[in-house]
Amino acid sequence: MINSKIFAPKFSRFLKFYFSIEISRRSLINTAVSMATSQQASANASKKNAISPARAENFPEWYQQVIKAADLADNSPVRGCMVIRPWGYAIWELVQKRLDAMFKAMGHQNAYFPLFIPLGYFEREARHVEGFAKECAIVTHTRLQPDGKGGLKPAAALEEPLIVRPTSETIIGEMFSKWVHSYRDLPLKINQWANVVRWEMRPRMFLRTTEFLWQEGHTVHAIGEEAQKEALDMLECYRTFAENYMAMPVICGQKSESEKFPGAVSTFTIEAMMQDGKALQAGTSHFLGQNFAKSSGIKFVSESGREEFGWTTSWGVTTRLIGGLIMTHSDDDGLVLPPQLAPLQIVILPIYREDSKAEVLDYCKNLFSELSEIAFGGEKLRVKIDDRDIRGGEKSWEFIKKGVPMRIEIGPRDIQSGTLCVCRRDRSPSEKEFVGRKEFANSIGEVLGAMQSTLFQRAKKYRDENSQRVNSADELFEFFNGCNPGFAYAHLHCDGATEERVKKDFGATIRCLPFEETESGTCIFTGKSSEQRVILARSY
Amino acid sequence: MINSKIFAPKFSRFLKFYFSIEISRRSLINTAVSMATSQQASANASKKNAISPARAENFPEWYQQVIKAADLADNSPVRGCMVIRPWGYAIWELVQKRLDAMFKAMGHQNAYFPLFIPLGYFEREARHVEGFAKECAIVTHTRLQPDGKGGLKPAAALEEPLIVRPTSETIIGEMFSKWVHSYRDLPLKINQWANVVRWEMRPRMFLRTTEFLWQEGHTVHAIGEEAQKEALDMLECYRTFAENYMAMPVICGQKSESEKFPGAVSTFTIEAMMQDGKALQAGTSHFLGQNFAKSSGIKFVSESGREEFGWTTSWGVTTRLIGGLIMTHSDDDGLVLPPQLAPLQIVILPIYREDSKAEVLDYCKNLFSELSEIAFGGEKLRVKIDDRDIRGGEKSWEFIKKGVPMRIEIGPRDIQSGTLCVCRRDRSPSEKEFVGRKEFANSIGEVLGAMQSTLFQRAKKYRDENSQRVNSADELFEFFNGCNPGFAYAHLHCDGATEERVKKDFGATIRCLPFEETESGTCIFTGKSSEQRVILARSY
Repeated sequence: MINSKIFAPKFSRFLKFYFSIEISRRSLINTAVSMATSQQASANASKKNAISPARAENFPEWYQQVIKAADLADNSPVRGCMVIRPWGYAIWELVQKRLDAMFKAMGHQNAYFPLFIPLGYFEREARHVEGFAKECAIVTHTRLQPDGKGGLKPAAALEEPLIVRPTSETIIGEMFSKWVHSYRDLPLKINQWANVVRWEMRPRMFLRTTEFLWQEGHTVHAIGEEAQKEALDMLECYRTFAENYMAMPVICGQKSESEKFPGAVSTFTIEAMMQDGKALQAGTSHFLGQNFAKSSGIKFVSESGREEFGWTTSWGVTTRLIGGLIMTHSDDDGLVLPPQLAPLQIVILPIYREDSKAEVLDYCKNLFSELSEIAFGGEKLRVKIDDRDIRGGEKSWEFIKKGVPMRIEIGPRDIQSGTLCVCRRDRSPSEKEFVGRKEFANSIGEVLGAMQSTLFQRAKKYRDENSQRVNSADELFEFFNGCNPGFAYAHLHCDGATEERVKKDFGATIRCLPFEETESGTCIFTGKSSEQRVILARSY
Repeated sequence: MINSKIFAPKFSRFLKFYFSIEISRRSLINTAVSMATSQQASANASKKNAISPARAENFPEWYQQVIKAADLADNSPVRGCMVIRPWGYAIWELVQKRLDAMFKAMGHQNAYFPLFIPLGYFEREARHVEGFAKECAIVTHTRLQPDGKGGLKPAAALEEPLIVRPTSETIIGEMFSKWVHSYRDLPLKINQWANVVRWEMRPRMFLRTTEFLWQEGHTVHAIGEEAQKEALDMLECYRTFAENYMAMPVICGQKSESEKFPGAVSTFTIEAMMQDGKALQAGTSHFLGQNFAKSSGIKFVSESGREEFGWTTSWGVTTRLIGGLIMTHSDDDGLVLPPQLAPLQIVILPIYREDSKAEVLDYCKNLFSELSEIAFGGEKLRVKIDDRDIRGGEKSWEFIKKGVPMRIEIGPRDIQSGTLCVCRRDRSPSEKEFVGRKEFANSIGEVLGAMQSTLFQRAKKYRDENSQRVNSADELFEFFNGCNPGFAYAHLHCDGATEERVKKDFGATIRCLPFEETESGTCIFTGKSSEQRVILARSY
């Protein structure tokens, strides 16, 4: 039985080999783009998919199963906290590396601030407290002592409780007030990579977890306009990262009053649409005005000798980006990774019987060395040979489910013919292509680039198809009554009551006031004048 | 007055320029080594140092002042927690980058585990609990609510308190028990970069802080010998890093029973000597036997089909390494950084009047571009131009105190003569050398390499001069009564009572049983047989 399983795919490959035509470099690239749209169809045609349920059946459960099948993360024994497994963490490391380089190129420096914030500091910015009070984890004791029942209990109460940071504005503000004296010290541009804790009642892996990893940037400026520009520059940095590296199209805009960061003057956001039509807030950047400078005492002597309060910003993205990555690109066979963020871009799978083992492995090593020297996205390709002694099919499916962009199978016949049997993650799992080795090496950078752009275009197409300009309350009702409603662009008078109504009636919120919308109109509910359309959507 | 300050050094440089001789590439490198030993003398000869007090006057206070003068870290409002400022954090980033590459080359993968550990998990390994009970920070509540006095108080008590991780053995053990099923899953080699908390009564920046940053590696193996080898391999990895990158000589050995990690079978350590003779435990690696596997239930089916417990290791280094770096190399003018770990290796300081500004800055930019393309230690040189409009002396001293290996001053005359005025951090601050630009570029890699090795040799010489083989209790008494006693190599019967006595009488502990010591003898206190000499020292 095992034998038949091994030989069946071999025989099919044998046939394919004879009928295959050498595909030229140019056509290979074109195919990357053209295949994209037909992928959905071919996936549907295949008998069985690796992930059950499918996206269309149960999107939330599909999401969990993709994470499980790709070994991205695991639930932990601590409620609401997850364990990020090596494959998931490797993606996060690539996110960090790219963003960190962008931040540094923009003049930011990394630093590290304490995990704990004294309760007193937290109380200073009233709006801030209010925003986070329900989500705080609080250290009240140190030391453990026997509880007399064979267990342990907290021993020494702290004089002042410590809040586990939900964000570091208050303590960083305190430090900034010590570091900033003169306009010569400004701008001060600091970033921190850290873990933060916000107690989560309904946790979902990567999207909402009690502890999560993030970066938080904090800057101080002498002039308000400069701080506001910084906040917008960082939003643009996030947009670039989301679109160029994650291949995730985003809409840049401003949050409404009720959705903005507690204590901010204005909050800017990038919003992405997931494959169920819901919005994901993927990154935010806040112009804090002088609010935090005043509560923390960040003062400086200006060029003209006056003492003034600084103008601050803060901005952050989190491990939730990985949730966005999953829900933007993955399909019913599991994770699909854009090549730029794939910890492994090409996996070489040797296929041999005992008598050809040495030859095949040698050839694979040689190919590995050649490919490892090729550059893509400013770095050497990330390639590996998987010569584990397990069944070929099992092995292939493992890499499909993990989203590795390209698999290359190498058997004795491929060596003889000088071709590579290439399987791509943006096509159906059963689809194989035979490419001359030299051509493959020459075109691989362009092919991966085309796959990257295909993923972006596909996601953008989905978003555009699921966005609608809505001109009345009735139309909005119809829109949100449809299947997987996406983004509704509507004129809305942004006040608490109207937003509350939208939330109650449709389960939707104002995702943002998009920068690109400038045409004025009248609110579809109140008839009041509206400066621009907003995006209404259900969200994560 | 300002003018005279500007022109005085200029005039002296003018004289030096005429009397300077072009120093050839070769002699430049030789000088790097030979100057090292005379550096102390020349430093003593200079009128005033940047750091007060000097090392000889008050070492602990000197240490704090070096940190302050180099902007490495700051005290935070949270007792025992520090803020790592950009210059300090940039060093930590270099430490991380190097170590991370070494770990990955050895087959370890990064992952991330929760910050919180349920109290119940912590109770499983009795020795482990005992070891950390006094140092725990405990989250007992979530949410904040008004306290009725205008402030806030913790609102909701947790059913089970959460410990802020002092180390992650117990929770990682729990996850490993889910991931490991068969011998095919082994070895499992995981590393985590994270923050940990151990409540510290007497905090000292970088050396002992309530929160610190570290990496913790955790592995599971099918065979005990393999796990023990892993623990030793990681110790060797730490030794290589300490000696080759930090230029900090270390002694590899095993901890005595009383000093080993709570719950370990054996703990291995690298011990370094600081410039006050005290020992610094710079990294540890633990062979945990089956202890944690048994308490966490890490079981696997062996090749022969039997269910067995795994064999585990753990190993870690922390931000304390930066404390070690400071105390190994720095002098009375501040921080001295080995080139391999210097966030900035060369700073170019333009010196100009208004009429020569454009020419000088152009030349500096050109030099910057040239130097930035040169490789050192497998990477491009880290160079910057500092053209801030502040006094040249103030600027130079800033970089001296920050430990930047090389400063290059460029004025109109240097451009004319085609030489660079080079100041090196391993020489007296007033010493300048004029080197042909082309020669400088050709030799800079070798010169930095020689500086790196000089720092290592100097530290090793200090350690050797302050180490002594001690053959009786009287000799030991004399040794520890001396000024800044270093390492005493003595035969000692390692049991609790003898160790307690050494601690009480001399304030010293057994730092380790060095691997290199193999000759047996008799205990200087008890006369009992001793398998090898141990190292006794006071420590951080």
